[in-house]
Amino acid sequence: MSGTQVLLVAGTHGNEINAPWLLEQWTITPELIKSYGVKFSKVIGNPEALQEGKRYLDQDLNRSFIPDLLTSQSLNGYELLRAKELLSVYGSEGCNQCQIAIDLHSTTSRMGSSLVIYGRRAADLALASLIQAHIGIPVYLHEGDPDQKGFLVEAWPCGLVIEIGPAPQGLLLGRIVQQTRLLIEICFELIGRVQSGHCSFPDHLVVHRHLVSIDFPRDSNNKVEACLHPDLQGRDWQPIFKGDALFLKASEELVRFEGENNSVPVFINEAAYAEKFIAMSLTKREIWPLAKEWVNVLEDLIRS
Amino acid sequence: MSGTQVLLVAGTHGNEINAPWLLEQWTITPELIKSYGVKFSKVIGNPEALQEGKRYLDQDLNRSFIPDLLTSQSLNGYELLRAKELLSVYGSEGCNQCQIAIDLHSTTSRMGSSLVIYGRRAADLALASLIQAHIGIPVYLHEGDPDQKGFLVEAWPCGLVIEIGPAPQGLLLGRIVQQTRLLIEICFELIGRVQSGHCSFPDHLVVHRHLVSIDFPRDSNNKVEACLHPDLQGRDWQPIFKGDALFLKASEELVRFEGENNSVPVFINEAAYAEKFIAMSLTKREIWPLAKEWVNVLEDLIRS
Repeated sequence: MSGTQVLLVAGTHGNEINAPWLLEQWTITPELIKSYGVKFSKVIGNPEALQEGKRYLDQDLNRSFIPDLLTSQSLNGYELLRAKELLSVYGSEGCNQCQIAIDLHSTTSRMGSSLVIYGRRAADLALASLIQAHIGIPVYLHEGDPDQKGFLVEAWPCGLVIEIGPAPQGLLLGRIVQQTRLLIEICFELIGRVQSGHCSFPDHLVVHRHLVSIDFPRDSNNKVEACLHPDLQGRDWQPIFKGDALFLKASEELVRFEGENNSVPVFINEAAYAEKFIAMSLTKREIWPLAKEWVNVLEDLIRS
Repeated sequence: MSGTQVLLVAGTHGNEINAPWLLEQWTITPELIKSYGVKFSKVIGNPEALQEGKRYLDQDLNRSFIPDLLTSQSLNGYELLRAKELLSVYGSEGCNQCQIAIDLHSTTSRMGSSLVIYGRRAADLALASLIQAHIGIPVYLHEGDPDQKGFLVEAWPCGLVIEIGPAPQGLLLGRIVQQTRLLIEICFELIGRVQSGHCSFPDHLVVHRHLVSIDFPRDSNNKVEACLHPDLQGRDWQPIFKGDALFLKASEELVRFEGENNSVPVFINEAAYAEKFIAMSLTKREIWPLAKEWVNVLEDLIRS
């Protein structure tokens, strides 16, 4: 058996309470989730924020894994210290070193069960392709967005985010717990197959490649002056076209989509993104043939 | 024209942001909402909590209107001070005295558009019956619950809460804004009719009378040990029967309903109520003939 270890993180955002609750129940009842022989550690990302029911205390932990920042001698704020602490335990120099990080999130958007990967790291693409081929869930590839960086999973050799929604912040929902549990088991099962050499990869990966994020219409005081249009609410992963209704002012005035036809919106009206000036992100759906190199990198990582 | 004035309150809970946003837009565009000749004042209940995106700072403002507490010389905490301030401006001794308070809320429960009244005050029952007869929405009568008191609207001679859901906390949703706006206009229209003497009352009121609130199953550390059952999520206002599934443990073990057949649950899985040890409240649906006294009290109040 190899020494590969998976790091499962819940509660990276303290107001996403479903995965933390599941981890707690799992600690009480260890047989709750099958791990298929895969070694793992599980941890609450931001326990202080979880305790307070807030996304974060000082800054978003899931934008805090910025190498230059974390090597600084004087770290300011709880989340930067927590990021450094997580790395010191589970990172490449840690006493409990992990190779793959799975970061469990929920979102107020109707994302269903989905995966998010960052950049085009070979191992991430290979692992995402395995999960997608197994249960058919969509993959959002986030890249080329200098305003959004320092994601937790980027600090490990391989990693992806599981996003499940819609889930209001701070609300325990049985369906979200069930979906989270299923995804964790599937990750273990597939990583276990790679580990044992009994894994067949698909021949392609469908990605939703990040194009751009768009903000709400704002007035001269930078306040939101139009809601997301009700007809667009909950239509994540469904293509939009020029002229489609995007936003609706209180006066019933429409703001229509003027961008590229067939753009696919994701994270539509995620509550936590308004402060980041994001009403939704637009993506392009693409089918990528699976590269042999991706598989090699993932297999080397898991079997080393 | 009478001197009756309506107080519209939004953001009594700072994480219920739809009504506050609507009030802001209405201030910018005064013709946004028709007031049918009814005088009104509008105010943000808890501006500090709204600013911080939290339900409250020190304690729930909507449990702070307790006369004995507010007459104390030394008030502790922001919300008690704010309650006293609102009363000093809009209460019976205030410079901007109002007779009817309408408190605009949203909830994570699937309550639809609904009314909540407290106790059996004649004017509230009459006003609720008018609104219900006009658009058919359900009315929850909260009473006989010593653990929950000090509601804002109780501090005015007549008042009711408008509850609209499901709305995640901190999320602007066009549909919720539209529903809120419609309810405000209907309140104005009906109060205007009473004012002008052109109002016909229905002959009955359907109430969902509060019986009891029930908590989540908890472990020996008082932690929630079962989710609301997914099949019950969103089934507010629908009767439940002995043996129906109420809660679901992570182990898939069921907790079933053992209470009174035909109980009608409301505020199912409202995110903010977990801290109050409430998973839902059970009610009994009753049809009450309209009392002439209710009408008299409301007419006297509005036409005085």
